[in-house]
Amino acid sequence: QWTHGPFEPVLYDAAMDGGGNPIPLPGKRTKIDPEWRLYSRSAGDDKAPIITILNAVDGLQSSKIGFTSNIKLFFEGEEEAGSANLKAHITKHKVLLDDIDIWLFCDGPMHQSRQPQLVFGVRGVTGMEITVYGATRSLHSGHYGNWAPVPGQSLAHLIATMKDENGKVLIDGFYDTVVPLSEFERFELSKIPDVDRQLKKELGLAYTEGNGRSINERLLLPSLTIKGLSSGNVGKKARNVIPNTATAAIGVRLVKGNDPEDMLDKVEAHIRSQGFHIVNDEPDMATRRKYPKIAKVDRRGSGYIASRTSMEEPNAKAIIKAVRAFVGDKLILMPALGGSLPLYLFTDLLKKPAIIVPIANHDNNQHAANENLRIANLWYGIDLMGVIMTMAN
Amino acid sequence: QWTHGPFEPVLYDAAMDGGGNPIPLPGKRTKIDPEWRLYSRSAGDDKAPIITILNAVDGLQSSKIGFTSNIKLFFEGEEEAGSANLKAHITKHKVLLDDIDIWLFCDGPMHQSRQPQLVFGVRGVTGMEITVYGATRSLHSGHYGNWAPVPGQSLAHLIATMKDENGKVLIDGFYDTVVPLSEFERFELSKIPDVDRQLKKELGLAYTEGNGRSINERLLLPSLTIKGLSSGNVGKKARNVIPNTATAAIGVRLVKGNDPEDMLDKVEAHIRSQGFHIVNDEPDMATRRKYPKIAKVDRRGSGYIASRTSMEEPNAKAIIKAVRAFVGDKLILMPALGGSLPLYLFTDLLKKPAIIVPIANHDNNQHAANENLRIANLWYGIDLMGVIMTMAN
Repeated sequence: QWTHGPFEPVLYDAAMDGGGNPIPLPGKRTKIDPEWRLYSRSAGDDKAPIITILNAVDGLQSSKIGFTSNIKLFFEGEEEAGSANLKAHITKHKVLLDDIDIWLFCDGPMHQSRQPQLVFGVRGVTGMEITVYGATRSLHSGHYGNWAPVPGQSLAHLIATMKDENGKVLIDGFYDTVVPLSEFERFELSKIPDVDRQLKKELGLAYTEGNGRSINERLLLPSLTIKGLSSGNVGKKARNVIPNTATAAIGVRLVKGNDPEDMLDKVEAHIRSQGFHIVNDEPDMATRRKYPKIAKVDRRGSGYIASRTSMEEPNAKAIIKAVRAFVGDKLILMPALGGSLPLYLFTDLLKKPAIIVPIANHDNNQHAANENLRIANLWYGIDLMGVIMTMAN
Repeated sequence: QWTHGPFEPVLYDAAMDGGGNPIPLPGKRTKIDPEWRLYSRSAGDDKAPIITILNAVDGLQSSKIGFTSNIKLFFEGEEEAGSANLKAHITKHKVLLDDIDIWLFCDGPMHQSRQPQLVFGVRGVTGMEITVYGATRSLHSGHYGNWAPVPGQSLAHLIATMKDENGKVLIDGFYDTVVPLSEFERFELSKIPDVDRQLKKELGLAYTEGNGRSINERLLLPSLTIKGLSSGNVGKKARNVIPNTATAAIGVRLVKGNDPEDMLDKVEAHIRSQGFHIVNDEPDMATRRKYPKIAKVDRRGSGYIASRTSMEEPNAKAIIKAVRAFVGDKLILMPALGGSLPLYLFTDLLKKPAIIVPIANHDNNQHAANENLRIANLWYGIDLMGVIMTMAN
């Protein structure tokens, strides 16, 4: 059973209290329950891989088992802050990275089903803010209501045209550049446990986008979501006015084949097709008096492309084979995560295959209170790193 | 010329400085320019009528001219704070108010054209907040985007169905209970100067609701406006999430014939017709798991009805005749203001006709910095009050 791996369950000096929690007690030897958790800041994201790698190296050395590959360790400490220096760093040290056959990214949580998983890509990300305009100032809703344009109404009409009620994006060409999955990837995707029922129950949902298609499949398409809406005020601050503007923050996730600027161009073309004159700064009086519908578009940083490594790439195949030999048929091969990481720097800039090797449990409370690492995942991670370091190519 | 009325231009001790501003100078007699302004808090709204009434009474008394009607003065000091005690007060003192033939409300600004004006009603007001729901918590837009429902998208779809791009409200029955204008009122409406061009220029608008219909006409219909929109965040606070809710504050103005609760019932029926399950409190987990689309409706106070007095009511006709004899054909008879005042307490509770008699200039900066009263309007108001107090029925 992989959750214990080749390591024997550890005994330690403790007894269990009435609530099933261990209390230190010298002389009393108790089995460590693999369901226990280690709580600490970044326990799962991203101390877990560092600890498992170092433990695997220690274990192999003390057992006098040699690596079967040359291993380079690359630690980056700015991922949570946008990896602002990563591109410059790998460009500067490109010569040191040129002989790498495959990158393994030990980040991200494991699958919600608790089955072991390898992930072959991530979505890219981009977005924009759209502001539509009414009068130059907020107007009294009595003295002007039913005559003055209402920005919130205008924005609602625009957003409604962007996506149908089944979640299909209606922007022309939005899906045109998507690189489809291979037959092999489709097959692997079909084997991934369906977590929709569990997720819908947990999140209190009776509806999801995509006409019942699974989340596993839906995250392999580009997405357009409303991250924010703002016009005037609601609640206690609401006033009897027609606000002078309404703004939407639009998030766009990208898959293999989508270019961030091209996708935003398509969103802009759609806005234009709905009769809006597009500006990039606050419209001046002449512009306001000329165009019935004005939208200010603010591309908030251009974002970055998705990354996807083929499951049939030779080095990727070797990793899959070794991990499958260790964990068995339960191994999930996921074409890509829904979230975004700048993996394109490795796959598209350095032009190397890259696989994400998750170790932390999916319920590790990443970035939140009580972040934790499940003991079973810690043991799995140590085993897994040992397996990869000693696999025969 | 009515702006001077029967009063002679006043001379006072001052000279003009280089900028055209008067400087006090004993011995130098200067004409008061009727375009000068008196600046003070509430100069226009609502000190102007009080001062003009008291001056008219003084003038008539010193001239030994008697009133031709019995006059009761009714001052209410809470109008800007919602007139919370007005209904109880007039109910309590109903016997003192029962012999009143017509109420004159000396409030509100004069017409933007500067022509004298009598107004025969106001719109009523009501509204609601609508909140639509996604998951129980905000979700990562990468891990869930293209699968989880997006409340901002759902709210946009709902709002878009409420009104077409020409400003016509599409809610079933929204215009059904409107009491149409009489032929007489339609004729008077047609004579009112068109201020649309001036307003559109001032407000920077190339489009207004109603397919080019004038503001004078549009304010005589009920309105539905988006006073506020909120979901997640925009601007620097925007995050890569799918927010868990989206809220719209909806304002509804009412005309004669519209009942506030009935109109909100119609909005609710529309929301239901769009597939939403309506709740009045936060939905619980069972409700969330059962209904694909949920909208919480919060009727924020029921509001109040519109008020409209017929221009052909005998006492109203007498007032019109007297004021027209004083100011001539330029007198504007406006069926109703777009804004709201609780005039229904007088017209519908006490069942008496009521006319608004504006005195302050339209550009008096009501409620704002530099509130002012134009001298011409002060003189006009004193004259007007004198005319009304001495008119023959």
